[in-house]
Amino acid sequence: MSEEQGREDRHNTRMQRKKAVVDEKIAAAQVERGVLVINTGNGKGKSSSAFGVVARAIGHGMKVAVIQFVKGRSDTGEEDFYRRVAEWMPGSVSWHVSGEGFTWETQDSSRDAAAARAAWELARNYLADPGIGLVVLDEFTYAFKYGWLDVAPVLAALAGRPPMQHVIITGRGAPEALIAAADTVTDMTLIKHAFKAGVKAMPGLEW
Amino acid sequence: MSEEQGREDRHNTRMQRKKAVVDEKIAAAQVERGVLVINTGNGKGKSSSAFGVVARAIGHGMKVAVIQFVKGRSDTGEEDFYRRVAEWMPGSVSWHVSGEGFTWETQDSSRDAAAARAAWELARNYLADPGIGLVVLDEFTYAFKYGWLDVAPVLAALAGRPPMQHVIITGRGAPEALIAAADTVTDMTLIKHAFKAGVKAMPGLEW
Repeated sequence: MSEEQGREDRHNTRMQRKKAVVDEKIAAAQVERGVLVINTGNGKGKSSSAFGVVARAIGHGMKVAVIQFVKGRSDTGEEDFYRRVAEWMPGSVSWHVSGEGFTWETQDSSRDAAAARAAWELARNYLADPGIGLVVLDEFTYAFKYGWLDVAPVLAALAGRPPMQHVIITGRGAPEALIAAADTVTDMTLIKHAFKAGVKAMPGLEW
Repeated sequence: MSEEQGREDRHNTRMQRKKAVVDEKIAAAQVERGVLVINTGNGKGKSSSAFGVVARAIGHGMKVAVIQFVKGRSDTGEEDFYRRVAEWMPGSVSWHVSGEGFTWETQDSSRDAAAARAAWELARNYLADPGIGLVVLDEFTYAFKYGWLDVAPVLAALAGRPPMQHVIITGRGAPEALIAAADTVTDMTLIKHAFKAGVKAMPGLEW
């Protein structure tokens, strides 16, 4: 037997064992229900991951609602794109933007709080609608950080949502009670960031 | 002055200081160029974040190429969605899928290697095309893990790409040399995952 053939055989044996382990795990996971996802941490990808799942959900014919709790700017590529998708496939995605920027931009905490509470009322309606397969609450964690919303009624609305509905919450510093209630939690951990090396936030990548 | 007014004034003073710091950082980051992004780690959101940036880039009128180096399944929502987008907006996105599944599924390492090398040849063409604003190399890291590709020629192609082109590489265990070459790196760190609690990979959320 050649050396290469031996290496390949060993690889294939390892992969057979791996396949058995993976197949067993897949067989063990058979519950079908809506999943509560949280994307938190200081790294990139929290919101963009949610916007990628929006594409995925629409691809499966699901209806999606996105509520952005913090409006960073008025000309994001994702908003423009999905508003066009909504014209092209009516009812596929409803896109809402609340507020007027990060709170250090507006410098008016009572106006921020009122905007966040209005956005939450909108979110509650979607969280009560079994026709909506995915609800994205983008930058929602700031509503707790700045005290605009209490966690308890939010947890109650999430727990009472339609059983097959998925929810994705994004933002830094997710409250512990929200993490405890979630099914899937990822901490987007910053390893490095182009911005710190002097690169501007680039259109089509960062916004 | 009421207690509430005092609290609000303190909040606003804090936010004014924060705005000054943020504004200064934004003023310092003025370089405009293509960014090399890596989404790695064991948590969720590596690929979906890239697919969200695809939406963002198309929203800004950029042309996008996606090369998936590992085909997990043939019926993903993201592929279906973006193929429909490509029909609707011709030229907006080119979607390619290589291979036939994770290597423990195919159990044939030489066929996997050949598929990965063919996908890389395709990727190289996009990495030489200044008309393409964003190239996504999805699950690309496995090509190095399994020895299908060498890192050196990949680094050379990335370094020689058009200066305004963004590239996103996803997958677990990104090689150190790739991380060193990247501008923005995020480790999607697993905090918890519904799958481990017995929930099936759900359509519209996980695929």
